Amino acid sequence: MSNDWQQGIEQLLSQSRVSFLATMGKHGPETSMAPFAIHNGNILLHLSKLAKHAANIENNPNIGLMICTPEAQASSPLALPRLSVQGEARLVPDERLASARAVYLKNIPDAEQLFSFGDFRLFQLAPAQIHWVGGFGKARKISLDQWLAI
Amino acid sequence: MSNDWQQGIEQLLSQSRVSFLATMGKHGPETSMAPFAIHNGNILLHLSKLAKHAANIENNPNIGLMICTPEAQASSPLALPRLSVQGEARLVPDERLASARAVYLKNIPDAEQLFSFGDFRLFQLAPAQIHWVGGFGKARKISLDQWLAI
Repeated sequence: MSNDWQQGIEQLLSQSRVSFLATMGKHGPETSMAPFAIHNGNILLHLSKLAKHAANIENNPNIGLMICTPEAQASSPLALPRLSVQGEARLVPDERLASARAVYLKNIPDAEQLFSFGDFRLFQLAPAQIHWVGGFGKARKISLDQWLAI
Repeated sequence: MSNDWQQGIEQLLSQSRVSFLATMGKHGPETSMAPFAIHNGNILLHLSKLAKHAANIENNPNIGLMICTPEAQASSPLALPRLSVQGEARLVPDERLASARAVYLKNIPDAEQLFSFGDFRLFQLAPAQIHWVGGFGKARKISLDQWLAI
């Protein structure tokens, strides 16, 4: 049995460090960019209170998130392997903050200084729905068990 | 007077061919990827009826769109120059379809075959709000006049 999708997701997560968020703004959905890391199956985001997406998440924690193969690494812009996630984003609870911070900084070392700024906080997106697009016309749903196994 | 932002936007549009959409789904905002081209200041998207984002747009034409510098071309994932747009996406009207198609295919030649598929249609996003982030902490609003001048 082919596990192409599993290898594809592993490769994507190893080569991409940024995600694109869809949050609900006052006048409709808004897209923004945020570096990410993965911690116990949740997707960590380190967001400033001053940024619109953080205010949007506080108003409505249901968000969409995409991790996409960087354009330069694919032959066609139509076929970029990508992962699309939906779920609720919440502040990382205090008891997990130290381990989440360590995992996040391992993936995004440049963010170290931001942890000394009072306006940045760590959020975790718990995936409720996950879709994988491996290329043009190659889409499949990923179950939570499959996600956690990766 | 510095026109850094203008040069930054020109560079971004010349090196990026994909955009990230935020559309409103049944259970919250969803992110998806779509190649783009620019036609008379509108952002062209060629979407399949079979894809969720097209159905979402038909239900609610207010969408968000981001064009972001490919990760591999920047030193830090925190500072990727990027453009964030909000506005309404509508089908390209018939009288503009031929010129829009030509502009789109010039930017995305791989999509030629898709125009022969009955389920793909060209949409145009008319920007109502535009934000430019030139790097960490370097954000500014772009007026429609400034956008059309680029």
